[in-house]
Amino acid sequence: MTREPLLPLRPELRGIEPYGAPQLDVPVLLNVNENPYGPSPAVVAEIAARVAAAASGLNRYPDRDFPQLRGALAGYLTRESGVAVAADQVWAANGSNEVMLHLLQAFGGPGRTALSFAPTYSMYPEYARDTHTRWVTGKRETDFTIDLDHALETIAAHQPSVILLTSPNNPTGTSLSLELVEAVCEAALRVDVDGAPAVVVVDEAYGEFRRAGVPSALRLLERFTNLAVSRTMSKAFALAGARLGYLAAHPRLVDALRVVRLPYHLSGVTQATALAALAHADELLAQVDALRAERDATVTWLQQQTVDGAPLVVAESDANFVLFGTFADRHAVWQGLLDRGVLIRETGPDGWLRVSIGTPQEMAAFRAALVEVAL
Amino acid sequence: MTREPLLPLRPELRGIEPYGAPQLDVPVLLNVNENPYGPSPAVVAEIAARVAAAASGLNRYPDRDFPQLRGALAGYLTRESGVAVAADQVWAANGSNEVMLHLLQAFGGPGRTALSFAPTYSMYPEYARDTHTRWVTGKRETDFTIDLDHALETIAAHQPSVILLTSPNNPTGTSLSLELVEAVCEAALRVDVDGAPAVVVVDEAYGEFRRAGVPSALRLLERFTNLAVSRTMSKAFALAGARLGYLAAHPRLVDALRVVRLPYHLSGVTQATALAALAHADELLAQVDALRAERDATVTWLQQQTVDGAPLVVAESDANFVLFGTFADRHAVWQGLLDRGVLIRETGPDGWLRVSIGTPQEMAAFRAALVEVAL
Repeated sequence: MTREPLLPLRPELRGIEPYGAPQLDVPVLLNVNENPYGPSPAVVAEIAARVAAAASGLNRYPDRDFPQLRGALAGYLTRESGVAVAADQVWAANGSNEVMLHLLQAFGGPGRTALSFAPTYSMYPEYARDTHTRWVTGKRETDFTIDLDHALETIAAHQPSVILLTSPNNPTGTSLSLELVEAVCEAALRVDVDGAPAVVVVDEAYGEFRRAGVPSALRLLERFTNLAVSRTMSKAFALAGARLGYLAAHPRLVDALRVVRLPYHLSGVTQATALAALAHADELLAQVDALRAERDATVTWLQQQTVDGAPLVVAESDANFVLFGTFADRHAVWQGLLDRGVLIRETGPDGWLRVSIGTPQEMAAFRAALVEVAL
Repeated sequence: MTREPLLPLRPELRGIEPYGAPQLDVPVLLNVNENPYGPSPAVVAEIAARVAAAASGLNRYPDRDFPQLRGALAGYLTRESGVAVAADQVWAANGSNEVMLHLLQAFGGPGRTALSFAPTYSMYPEYARDTHTRWVTGKRETDFTIDLDHALETIAAHQPSVILLTSPNNPTGTSLSLELVEAVCEAALRVDVDGAPAVVVVDEAYGEFRRAGVPSALRLLERFTNLAVSRTMSKAFALAGARLGYLAAHPRLVDALRVVRLPYHLSGVTQATALAALAHADELLAQVDALRAERDATVTWLQQQTVDGAPLVVAESDANFVLFGTFADRHAVWQGLLDRGVLIRETGPDGWLRVSIGTPQEMAAFRAALVEVAL
């Protein structure tokens, strides 16, 4: 194998590095918004037991439509949001990113446009690229909210088939008001995509961390058949390693995703693991309140700090991370923290940094390192 | 939810039903080429133990590049084929179908063509559709082999960026000679896709079931940097429910797939399950010989049968299924078997039926039912 091979890689992929934050072996990992609390021994035992039960039948393909898991997810959403969600309104895949891929495969694609409002999640353009969907962004305001008039103008101008609203937004932590989401859904109905309206996807990956009184877009499901609200078990359920993303939408929207999914995309082991976690939802979610309190404390502490005589700017957060800045040389700050064993994320607009909320001990290490490096 | 929603489903997906064989609750399941032998208690225990160990860390994202699993798969391929395969030559995903999706995302797409030879696996056109790749087929001969001149002419005429060879072929069971695969790889080097050659994918999902003396295309890996040989743990490893497909190719080809994969596409639970099965490879593969013997006996028995005075036609098989026919009304035969509790597959050219190889008891039930219904 001495020759460097010539391969017909698509032109738009040439020279591209695989996506992903550095996976470094560091004492304090606060870079990818993981939940710092691993499953308890009881949850681990339940996962092992359910997987063992599934394992004896692993020679058979899994249920392609996984009604049991969809029912369990629907039940959870109903309890969490107070909005009645049925099993046939739920879809799931290997992580929210596969859910988004299915959405863009069904509703995006060549000749179509997906729209979001930047700064937002850095994977979205990759989903668009991988599905040959044109990617356009409107802008967020300086406080990272979205101006309604700007949103409506951008939608009218680009006539997107998919509108992605992220709430709470990554990497800023910003929630959108229900009024804005509602107005965007209305505007999406006025878009003309070969005679059909646009689909609005509200990405609520961090939804469970929202502050008291901040509503979920699930409340709008009954009114808008062109709305999908996506969630994940990676964050609040502390199950990033199990890769289970899902959404709620009208059953006909779910049916469209069933056409583009690869058959048997969700393994029997994944289904068993997710069901085990859902059976322990209350226990897993008990840590969410602790993380929200730690998040609020982190915001407050950061607001009290100054850099070069000016107070730090801190984005309001409804998620399990906080975006703060600004630093003349954010990379130096990031590197300084890493040198002290604290890995955070260099992301967001120039000069900003994002820290995930860890345990109290991890946040103390973060604060101590930040004081040393930058304050 | 009384309104039937209007959604911007892509035009080519309208009216399409989700892919998949019927999932029916029937005593004898011989329709989707599953391995009838479930994992032993020892394998189940190993899976449960490894998943339990992984579960306590499931709050963290899995290793995106899963070097341990790639190493274990490389070791297995090396032992199975006698061809040295290294970890960086291996890629894996949630089933071979996701592996194929990655291949077409990297090397296919709008403006490009994928070529195979029909009759072949019915999912391939869906992968092409989902990646907006033009799908063309050459033909197989009446014995389901591929004529080399025809292959070369078809490749020259269509200038595909991806050539899919299935060996053993599904649904016919036919293996391709190493000489043919080699000549196709050479021809692929003469294709001009924006200055690069075509990639040849040899789908060896059923490779472990091939008869003695039938070689794997892995033997050609060292010579052709534009060759990928795909396998799956669904069949020989009896792990369809765990969804683990993989391939071996030049490390640079693997690097191209890393660009289009969704980050963290392979869960920690999937990685743990596959590693557990690979640790018991010898035990799991012990059933392969029994299935090959049962397959050969099924072929022999079918060849001895007549329908309407003419002998049944039976395709030579190197897989864990047999294609046989022909029947004036194959649907009636399929239905008659189903009425007797035996589910086989109505697939392949008109008049043919495909039966997966089950246990001796299941094959006896199949033979008895077929005699009653059709012979």
